Amino acid sequence: MTAGGARGLFITFEGIDGSGKSTQCRLLAEALQKAGRNVVLTREPGGSPGAEEIRRLVLEGDPDRWSAETELLLFMAARRDHLERTIEPALAAGKVVICDRFADSTRMYQGLSRGDLRAAVDQMHALMIGREPDLTLLIDMDPAEGLARAKGRQGKEERFEDFGIGLQEKMRAGFLALAQEFADRFRVVDGARPLDDVAADVRRLADEALEGSRA
Amino acid sequence: MTAGGARGLFITFEGIDGSGKSTQCRLLAEALQKAGRNVVLTREPGGSPGAEEIRRLVLEGDPDRWSAETELLLFMAARRDHLERTIEPALAAGKVVICDRFADSTRMYQGLSRGDLRAAVDQMHALMIGREPDLTLLIDMDPAEGLARAKGRQGKEERFEDFGIGLQEKMRAGFLALAQEFADRFRVVDGARPLDDVAADVRRLADEALEGSRA
Ligand SMILES: Nc1ncnc2c1ncn2[C@@H]1O[C@H](COP(=O)(O)OP(=O)(O)OP(=O)(O)O)[C@@H](O)[C@H]1O
Ligand SMILES: Nc1ncnc2c1ncn2[C@@H]1O[C@H](COP(=O)(O)OP(=O)(O)OP(=O)(O)O)[C@@H](O)[C@H]1O
Ligand SMILES: [Mg+2]
Ligand SMILES: [Mg+2]
Repeated sequence: MTAGGARGLFITFEGIDGSGKSTQCRLLAEALQKAGRNVVLTREPGGSPGAEEIRRLVLEGDPDRWSAETELLLFMAARRDHLERTIEPALAAGKVVICDRFADSTRMYQGLSRGDLRAAVDQMHALMIGREPDLTLLIDMDPAEGLARAKGRQGKEERFEDFGIGLQEKMRAGFLALAQEFADRFRVVDGARPLDDVAADVRRLADEALEGSRA
Repeated sequence: MTAGGARGLFITFEGIDGSGKSTQCRLLAEALQKAGRNVVLTREPGGSPGAEEIRRLVLEGDPDRWSAETELLLFMAARRDHLERTIEPALAAGKVVICDRFADSTRMYQGLSRGDLRAAVDQMHALMIGREPDLTLLIDMDPAEGLARAKGRQGKEERFEDFGIGLQEKMRAGFLALAQEFADRFRVVDGARPLDDVAADVRRLADEALEGSRA
């Protein structure tokens, strides 16, 4: 509890590419701000100056430049910085932190590409991160729908063609499996509906969590 | 065993600042090369292009830029890259790898500055590094002796004055404690003697380890 009595709440958004995470993060942040809450909107990878620099180091250059293990350690370093410099101070000040992707994205990607690393991810998370979201909103949808949306956006199509819809289907299944594994904090939202309908569900689930945190 | 039958050997050097690690690494590398061994001389932090870049990221800018935890994760990422790209391939090819500082330096520094992180260091090492040296040569000496030597070198004096001799004494004690903890692979060499005498001990201990690895 902070001096003012407000308790912080940590909400993360997960879901496949183009499912609407960033859109819903922004809408929820705006709605909660209008309702008088102090909101910090952030994202991963990145979210603090140091983490953004690590992110650039990971993403620049040859894709084979870093092994899966080295990349994992670099992302963990970025997350630790993001947590210390952005997330924890905001929560301690009683703010609502809304984060576009977080540790579940790492768990999902490792589960797909290097399943044997999932145990290492969990152990490093326990050692160096510790923090879990109070609420994780999985914006779930058929990848074909996301692909259709992405085609409307400049420069995104290529990326989808690189990865393929089959991979997006595996990612969807990976996220749904995580929603079962961490059922206490995950809520699955049907993202294949008009934007406002999705936003209304998101708002309702966030309000429930805010109520719960006040109790 | 490689095709030629030669088995790689991983030798690391540890010790306080100015104790003579880099000098002894170089002399040992030259001596073994003359004796017909294939030698890779490397160092930490750094030792591979990726690790050198991470090193630059850690060292540049404000000293408070990264917390101890983030810095630890970045150094672990650098070590993983160094291990994969430089150390493991050389060992697999039957080479002798001589490394100027390695994981024991991390253990020692964490033990001094953030003792509570030592367990995390060990667990991350077990998860993401795994490899321990076959032989670790601790070049041990009274810090006052190292200070006197450092004064002879351009630009190094300042660093000593920053850190202070008291800290160097704690580092010495920290390394000696590690030598007891990992008594099977550590050998303590008295570094406060003429260079050639130290080198002769180093060479003898390396030869014993090379003999052992052939058996
Ligand atoms: N419910 C919706 N109906 C139709 N279009 C939507 C809906 N939600 C978002 N969009 C549009 O779909 C596109 C992708 O949305 P957004 O960028 O929010 O997804 P994302 O999950 O953040 O994607 P990425 O994983 O690439 O960051 C955008 O053009 C956005 O305007
Ligand atoms: N046995 C010795 N006797 C006298 N001088 C020495 C001896 N060994 C090394 N030196 C000198 O001491 C200085 C420090 O040696 P060196 O750079 O090898 O130490 P180091 O342990 O690698 O230091 P650092 O921790 O700063 O990297 C150098 O000028 C070197 O020439
Ligand atoms: Mg987005
Ligand atoms: Mg040196």
